[in-house]
Amino acid sequence: MRFVNFIREGQATLGVRDGDDVRVLGTEPLESVLARGVDLNEWARANASEEKLPMAGLRLLPPLQRPPKIICVGLNFADHTKESNYEQPAYPTLFLRVNTSLVAHDQPMIRPDVADSEGLDYEGEIAVVIGKGGRHIAKDDALACVAGYSLFNDGSVREYQFKTPQWTVGKNFDATGAFGPDLITADELPPGVRGLRLETRVNGAVVQSANTDELVFDVASLISIISEAITLEAGDVIVSGTPSGIGWARTPKLLMKAGDVCEVSVEGMGVLRNVIADEPAR
Amino acid sequence: MRFVNFIREGQATLGVRDGDDVRVLGTEPLESVLARGVDLNEWARANASEEKLPMAGLRLLPPLQRPPKIICVGLNFADHTKESNYEQPAYPTLFLRVNTSLVAHDQPMIRPDVADSEGLDYEGEIAVVIGKGGRHIAKDDALACVAGYSLFNDGSVREYQFKTPQWTVGKNFDATGAFGPDLITADELPPGVRGLRLETRVNGAVVQSANTDELVFDVASLISIISEAITLEAGDVIVSGTPSGIGWARTPKLLMKAGDVCEVSVEGMGVLRNVIADEPAR
Repeated sequence: MRFVNFIREGQATLGVRDGDDVRVLGTEPLESVLARGVDLNEWARANASEEKLPMAGLRLLPPLQRPPKIICVGLNFADHTKESNYEQPAYPTLFLRVNTSLVAHDQPMIRPDVADSEGLDYEGEIAVVIGKGGRHIAKDDALACVAGYSLFNDGSVREYQFKTPQWTVGKNFDATGAFGPDLITADELPPGVRGLRLETRVNGAVVQSANTDELVFDVASLISIISEAITLEAGDVIVSGTPSGIGWARTPKLLMKAGDVCEVSVEGMGVLRNVIADEPAR
Repeated sequence: MRFVNFIREGQATLGVRDGDDVRVLGTEPLESVLARGVDLNEWARANASEEKLPMAGLRLLPPLQRPPKIICVGLNFADHTKESNYEQPAYPTLFLRVNTSLVAHDQPMIRPDVADSEGLDYEGEIAVVIGKGGRHIAKDDALACVAGYSLFNDGSVREYQFKTPQWTVGKNFDATGAFGPDLITADELPPGVRGLRLETRVNGAVVQSANTDELVFDVASLISIISEAITLEAGDVIVSGTPSGIGWARTPKLLMKAGDVCEVSVEGMGVLRNVIADEPAR
């Protein structure tokens, strides 16, 4: 099933999609539902409202607004590692995002008002949402820990990403990490989301296109390797990596400015769409 | 005043120190109290129990167990940047920690059971806890945003820190980031914790010693610069950086193993003490 988080009467509200409509589940956040260990599909069948709201009229929020962790994977497609002028590491290149960097489907991704940045770069990715956490999760058990998947646009302020040896700040400007539109339970997709076409478009032009089979570390490997070091918790998000084609590596560079429209799509998963807007003047 | 978080009847409980004793404040976490915008000192005066518990008998928790963000600053003492073989960046080198990496005062810092690590390295630091959040906080307003300070030992698994271009995993093994013992409100310390001696000791021997005046980016600058990019929230923690003397940069290396005792102390702030223990066998 497909879960959406949206604003209703000023409150974050969880719903489950029913065709072009959404049935209401209540105001308990998905983080909290997952932490209770419920099966999302069963829970939705038992709790969805009779009432249906048209999906088209909803103002969405990220499926999870306060995941315990957002663990991103860099350099996870060989062509992207090459265009970024890195050697391919034999271990996943992890960096973290904070919750304040998230932004919903159909809300503007914000190009910050900083003098020394030409624009915002895109990175189309698949987000993995953990349902059952743990430490030292074997690779064979890893996919059973996944609650579902969503789309992610790991919007990057490159000039800040490379100001120091750590990428953190360039990956964490407010409202640069688009996440959504929905959380799709794992049973609706191929195991480990393998064999799917991932595409990013800017103003309709395809700028990234790859098959998820090309991931250097696949979803099961990521969960297993990360959990060797870090206890994964229900609601944690792993953003699995972007293919080649980023704007920063092009000649000339292609960095997004106000009014540009960026879409990330994956076969069977839908489209995450965001307009770019300038940070409001202070 | 000095606030401690401890386990009472199986529950995380907040208290305020009164000499060698602690008066109970209740089970609302410090994150939540700070998010309500209360003045900690006034709140404690109004809510502290008559009952006093001896501090010595308490099993402490980190002052905050689920801060919204833990933003760490690398390369923030020039001598440490040099021993680490980096050029000093003109911008703070930020990396993030996740909550699962935290461990309390007097609890063991865990040396992970990984084949390719010789031991755990120490990094004595001061943690800054945000009381009043915001974006684009001017440097002159920054110290008014601080609720208080604590001590931090940014325990690092160096071999993992340097497996890829990003330090993340080496900084985020479970129970490697010691935090505590107490949150000391800002009014008890010099503005911006300037002019204080920071010392780290392993088995009693001083291994790091510096004055907080040597910070490349001081507390006010960090808050101001970080908030140019990222909205700071009440309860966020900024771990301000470690001086030279880390074990990894020594010849021979000094990496901590089970039974070693590591202490971080800052004048007027007390001592954060942890024994090193091996991760239990699986």
